[in-house]
Amino acid sequence: MTETDRPAVTVLGLGAMGTALAEALLAEGHPVTVWNRTATRADPLVERGAARAATPGEAIAASSLVLTCLLDYASVHEVLDEHGDALRGRVLANLTNGTPAQARRFAEWAACHGADYLDGGIMAVPPQIATPEAFLLYSGSRAAFDTHRGTLAVLGESHYLGEAAGLAALHDIALLSGMYGMFAGIVHAFAVVRAEGTPAAEFAPLLTRWLSAMGGWAHAAAGQIDSGDYTTGVVSNLGMQAAGFANLIRTAEEQGLSPELLAPFGSLLRRRAEAGHAREDITGVIELLRKGNPA
Amino acid sequence: MTETDRPAVTVLGLGAMGTALAEALLAEGHPVTVWNRTATRADPLVERGAARAATPGEAIAASSLVLTCLLDYASVHEVLDEHGDALRGRVLANLTNGTPAQARRFAEWAACHGADYLDGGIMAVPPQIATPEAFLLYSGSRAAFDTHRGTLAVLGESHYLGEAAGLAALHDIALLSGMYGMFAGIVHAFAVVRAEGTPAAEFAPLLTRWLSAMGGWAHAAAGQIDSGDYTTGVVSNLGMQAAGFANLIRTAEEQGLSPELLAPFGSLLRRRAEAGHAREDITGVIELLRKGNPA
Ligand SMILES: NC(=O)c1ccc[n+]([C@@H]2O[C@H](COP(=O)([O-])OP(=O)(O)OC[C@H]3O[C@@H](n4cnc5c(N)ncnc54)[C@H](OP(=O)(O)O)[C@@H]3O)[C@@H](O)[C@H]2O)c1
Ligand SMILES: NC(=O)c1ccc[n+]([C@@H]2O[C@H](COP(=O)([O-])OP(=O)(O)OC[C@H]3O[C@@H](n4cnc5c(N)ncnc54)[C@H](OP(=O)(O)O)[C@@H]3O)[C@@H](O)[C@H]2O)c1
Repeated sequence: MTETDRPAVTVLGLGAMGTALAEALLAEGHPVTVWNRTATRADPLVERGAARAATPGEAIAASSLVLTCLLDYASVHEVLDEHGDALRGRVLANLTNGTPAQARRFAEWAACHGADYLDGGIMAVPPQIATPEAFLLYSGSRAAFDTHRGTLAVLGESHYLGEAAGLAALHDIALLSGMYGMFAGIVHAFAVVRAEGTPAAEFAPLLTRWLSAMGGWAHAAAGQIDSGDYTTGVVSNLGMQAAGFANLIRTAEEQGLSPELLAPFGSLLRRRAEAGHAREDITGVIELLRKGNPA
Repeated sequence: MTETDRPAVTVLGLGAMGTALAEALLAEGHPVTVWNRTATRADPLVERGAARAATPGEAIAASSLVLTCLLDYASVHEVLDEHGDALRGRVLANLTNGTPAQARRFAEWAACHGADYLDGGIMAVPPQIATPEAFLLYSGSRAAFDTHRGTLAVLGESHYLGEAAGLAALHDIALLSGMYGMFAGIVHAFAVVRAEGTPAAEFAPLLTRWLSAMGGWAHAAAGQIDSGDYTTGVVSNLGMQAAGFANLIRTAEEQGLSPELLAPFGSLLRRRAEAGHAREDITGVIELLRKGNPA
């Protein structure tokens, strides 16, 4: 393909992430048209060759593939609601974070306006876009994904999850939930060592090594969760872990730190122990998250 | 060294972890003497060549290095309180989980009885003992560590952190805090995908890939935490993350899942956003953990 053969792409929303997406497409030779509510944020992209549109409608008209990367669904509606008809016959790939239900409702809105809808979740921070670390989740129109898979691959590894529009958001939300749990643990861990004078930077290598060694727990846990059997091959029983957990809380309290980020998991361990599951693996705490479920 | 040259070791406590420690030492040819409250748990080790002691005192008398690996400090005191004098002139390496304050107090108890004290934290699950994945943290008597470093290295990579007895527990507790944050995130993530029919095992590879890609955040966060500057090089601003976090909570609620494991971190993000830090990195939430600190 010569540069001019590459499909044109419109990017609506030039925050940190929209800018990274537009930059990556420009770098691969795609004609890129951009629009942002605060127009000056387009300046650096225009300098690198992007076309500036005066309105979302003008931006949409420039390309058969339209990417939206805005703060949330409220901003997506603010930008697109008046321009539904401009989308007819185009592919709308919405890479804005939202819930599965929001994605499903928005897919219906797009269908009403004759657009082919792809919902996407970006699993990367902006500097990782167009590097091997980035992956993106897609769901919705398979035809739209197939038509534009070459262009989408510029942004990062693509995972197409199926026609049901909510699937990308479902997986995105689940991955982010896992990440924020880890981040909460990291923040608490740094607070603990710093409370007794160890700099965070000195502790960080040990922490990342430990988290990556223990991340494999997800595989063991998955098998137990799918089978509902938390009793076989137990090497770290729940009773022992509940006792150890009490030491985490006590340490935070002795250090004058709030244990609020850790406390909820400790409560689940305690409830399971009290309900007679002390000799099992801890994975069974998942049953306590389903509302209405007793221990 | 021939087998019989290896130093004798006593192991008090033969739960899952104490058994793994004793097995590893036996496998390397150390004479190992064992004792456990429930005596039958020693049987498999005795079959593999360990000597069974009838009392903790008898076990202590057999070796110059005594390892304790019990449930908690209450059990350590139950086992050792009557045998303090038997420890005189020996090295007591206590690998039982506890708080830094418990380790410091116990080091004093050991010193009173003329024992050289090492406090230890085992960063591994039992099947990882004596594999390259295991590492152990030590603090307390440097002389004791130096004398027994060859023996301790059998169990896993040793990290000696300094003479202050509480240091190993401090780092152990911080690492476990990080791990349980990650585990809480993993459990919630599995609950989210399963709520819409995706098996945990199908989702696990994506989740572990994502967590290992995002674990590097600890290094960036450490620099910001040590400097107290959360404003430079921001690629994922707190305001955007607080908006996304609301979608995680909303998804859980729409699925009938309790958001209790995620909610506390979301509250910290919201408090920081409301206090005017929306354009910063999220790392500043650590300031909210120090009790008495305003946002
Ligand atoms: N940054 C990351 O690490 C990352 C990673 C994965 C996914 N994402 C997702 O990518 C999306 C964008 O994130 P970001 O990092 O680019 O955020 P950002 O830097 O804060 O940018 C937000 C964008 O939304 C626009 N916007 C906000 N409210 C609007 C409204 N009412 N009407 C029109 N435009 C509005 C902003 O326009 P103005 O410039 O006019 O304010 C800006 O273009 C979010 O859904 C986020 O969850 C981000
Ligand atoms: N398993 C892991 O993944 C892991 C990882 C790192 C660190 N650790 C730490 O290693 C230590 C032991 O854990 P574990 O997994 O071996 O636990 P475990 O399998 O539950 O074994 C607990 C041990 O403590 C003994 N014990 C409990 N209460 C006692 C008492 N009042 N008096 C005398 N002995 C008592 C038990 O004796 P009985 O057999 O008579 O009940 C048993 O030997 C804990 O501090 C734990 O935090 C464990």
